[in-house]
Amino acid sequence: MFYIILFCFDIIKVMMFIALSKSDHGGLNMNAEIIAVGTEILLGDIVNTNSQFLARRLADFGISLFHQSVVGDNEERLTEELSEAFKRCALVITTGGLGPTTDDITKETAAKFFKKPLVLDDASLKNLERIFSRQNRPVSEGNLKQAYFPEGSKILPNDNGTAPGCIINENNNILIILPGPPREVYPMFENHVVPFLKTLTDNVILSKVLRVVGLGESLMAAEVQDIIENSINPTVAPYAKQGESTLRITARAKNQEECLELIKPVEEKIRERLGVSVYGTNDASIESVIAEMLMAKNLTIATAESCTGGMAAAKLINYPGISRVFMEGAVTYSNQSKIKRLGVKPETLEKFGAVSAETALEMAEGIAKTAGTDIGLSTTGIAGPDGGTEEKPVGLVYIGLYINGTVKFKKFNTSGTRDMIRNRATIAALDFLRKELINIE
Amino acid sequence: MFYIILFCFDIIKVMMFIALSKSDHGGLNMNAEIIAVGTEILLGDIVNTNSQFLARRLADFGISLFHQSVVGDNEERLTEELSEAFKRCALVITTGGLGPTTDDITKETAAKFFKKPLVLDDASLKNLERIFSRQNRPVSEGNLKQAYFPEGSKILPNDNGTAPGCIINENNNILIILPGPPREVYPMFENHVVPFLKTLTDNVILSKVLRVVGLGESLMAAEVQDIIENSINPTVAPYAKQGESTLRITARAKNQEECLELIKPVEEKIRERLGVSVYGTNDASIESVIAEMLMAKNLTIATAESCTGGMAAAKLINYPGISRVFMEGAVTYSNQSKIKRLGVKPETLEKFGAVSAETALEMAEGIAKTAGTDIGLSTTGIAGPDGGTEEKPVGLVYIGLYINGTVKFKKFNTSGTRDMIRNRATIAALDFLRKELINIE
Repeated sequence: MFYIILFCFDIIKVMMFIALSKSDHGGLNMNAEIIAVGTEILLGDIVNTNSQFLARRLADFGISLFHQSVVGDNEERLTEELSEAFKRCALVITTGGLGPTTDDITKETAAKFFKKPLVLDDASLKNLERIFSRQNRPVSEGNLKQAYFPEGSKILPNDNGTAPGCIINENNNILIILPGPPREVYPMFENHVVPFLKTLTDNVILSKVLRVVGLGESLMAAEVQDIIENSINPTVAPYAKQGESTLRITARAKNQEECLELIKPVEEKIRERLGVSVYGTNDASIESVIAEMLMAKNLTIATAESCTGGMAAAKLINYPGISRVFMEGAVTYSNQSKIKRLGVKPETLEKFGAVSAETALEMAEGIAKTAGTDIGLSTTGIAGPDGGTEEKPVGLVYIGLYINGTVKFKKFNTSGTRDMIRNRATIAALDFLRKELINIE
Repeated sequence: MFYIILFCFDIIKVMMFIALSKSDHGGLNMNAEIIAVGTEILLGDIVNTNSQFLARRLADFGISLFHQSVVGDNEERLTEELSEAFKRCALVITTGGLGPTTDDITKETAAKFFKKPLVLDDASLKNLERIFSRQNRPVSEGNLKQAYFPEGSKILPNDNGTAPGCIINENNNILIILPGPPREVYPMFENHVVPFLKTLTDNVILSKVLRVVGLGESLMAAEVQDIIENSINPTVAPYAKQGESTLRITARAKNQEECLELIKPVEEKIRERLGVSVYGTNDASIESVIAEMLMAKNLTIATAESCTGGMAAAKLINYPGISRVFMEGAVTYSNQSKIKRLGVKPETLEKFGAVSAETALEMAEGIAKTAGTDIGLSTTGIAGPDGGTEEKPVGLVYIGLYINGTVKFKKFNTSGTRDMIRNRATIAALDFLRKELINIE
């Protein structure tokens, strides 16, 4: 059995070279598709996190994904989808439809599709009996079918449930059948599918994520568009979310060292273009980068927020251990609290308004002095939807910064809903602080 | 133009009767498919929440969904998918691929698919110019293409971004093109697609959303499972996200009055079961419910946060006009700031610890007294990942509440990542306040 599978893998490796020539992403070895099976996903009762997980992990193995789909627990439509998928690629992964009810028909449909009988797997049956005996119950008829698999399948044990998966390899079409619950899928993939996938490639795959802030998606794309478009190995892929963007650099090579060597010059080129806008790599967050700089430079901080109303403090406190440098925050939304808590002068509010550079600066200095910190960071702006004027429109935010006796401010303009404006102002304030911290000492 | 579209709708209504006979879900009128477009979803960089949202909302309109798919930003494969989808149904919704970069090609591909030129929409261009002028920038070339649409499209304005969507109706094949970011998709669907879908049916469709807090998803489901399962008209669909759940009751009838009559007994039954856990309906948020109660009862509030670090204040300030009742917030993460800002006694911190009912109560009273408010709300807890003990584990949070001279506390236990614990503690604190406010006066 073992030798037969090994032999099949050799065939697959030959196939991979064929697939390579069909690929439109240079350097990738194999094409795959994911089919999520289940009426609860189709109708939106649950969100399809399995497909995301599988897509990511396949990418790590240099397996190209061109298509994902969702079908209900319906034999006709699943058969049609399998048929379409195997026209486009040689590796298909299904998730879902292995449950004990008569609705669950993925294995049964796959068996018919490949014209194979379902046969009992003794080890799986024994495992089911073990699970049920713990609950002092016999194996139910529904669960019994979870021990049957298309003839010749490689069984994928389920360490977290009653439904094992399986791999069918028929005429070089590989179908990997996984259960539905994420807590069963993730470990089954890592423990039993990954070793299988590793036999399909000689390469190591390594990604490095560069995190970018302070540039819009289109501005970042414009700066590095040619690098993204010309990237083959490593590939460079952009992704943007509220106020932040990332660039994922993924290399494939014989070993980790060669991957790192491939990534290095591309990373340098991107950093040259984007400069200080690249704030970190991989799992870094803007708050972790700030927290680490504050600790390294031995600087303490306090915040005074008006329009962001606690969001900057909340973000900083998301970093465990921030208490060493973060002393306190004030949410001074009313003019009265700006005067009382921070010592902002009533004349300043009167003359320049609450949303002004002058007020932002007094807020920053005020919180630093009353909290006894090296740094004070402040925000004051118009988050909307009302309260804007021609001179001071909704989306106008002033950020004040006090560092060791000097004050600076930044005028920031944005747009969107109240929530979006407040989120972007928070990121802008933290980014202003980050850039100033880089220049200290 | 308006009349032509109306005429098309009549054709569609005829089609719906034909589709009806093909449907294998009783009572549904039309079949649809969802295509998510975007390499970031295909490769698993983000999870496909849009398809879930759209699937649910289509179900509310009695539209059957048999297939969902994901393709990358690739003209050939998107064209193939459109072609396959329109073989199976008459309504296709795409989401994604309307961004400013050259990668984004959904509208361009759809235009070619339907053999239509892309034409400039003046209103969309003006809107783009307005957005960019606020940031003192000209409209970039990339963004300019967001104002072009396949000829004859109905434009779907985007209130939360630069990319409008559109509806193409060609030979009774309807393609609804939506952007990618969920914060743009959801309001665009509700405000602009729903009115369109309503024209496709003689029935009126009306939804009422009940918002639930303080019950876990599985607990809520257990309480109302039979109502959900037996719901036909109106349908009842649950949805859960961090700390909050909703139940959407959707009725179909000849007119609005009949819909309301259908909804009423179901709503009453649910409210009987869930009681005060139902905090609001439709667009209410926990902060809006609290803000309105504070205003109605003429009560002012201040917050003092430790583990939530500003998140409760930030949430309250998300309500425009909160400044009438929200005086100030203190983020007192360090013991020193709890003593200095709030007057928490050093002995209390020493004897009971920072995470204790006693400290929470002194924090709540302290912030109310120094801010001169009727109410003080406080949080102190262990957000992790470190710092937990057997006696005080990660996830333990004390919430303190001072209202008009009396103090109360709530001990709250949760689990998860640091971020999840802080979010849940914030919701728990606001819910504690909400329930106490109901009983006042």
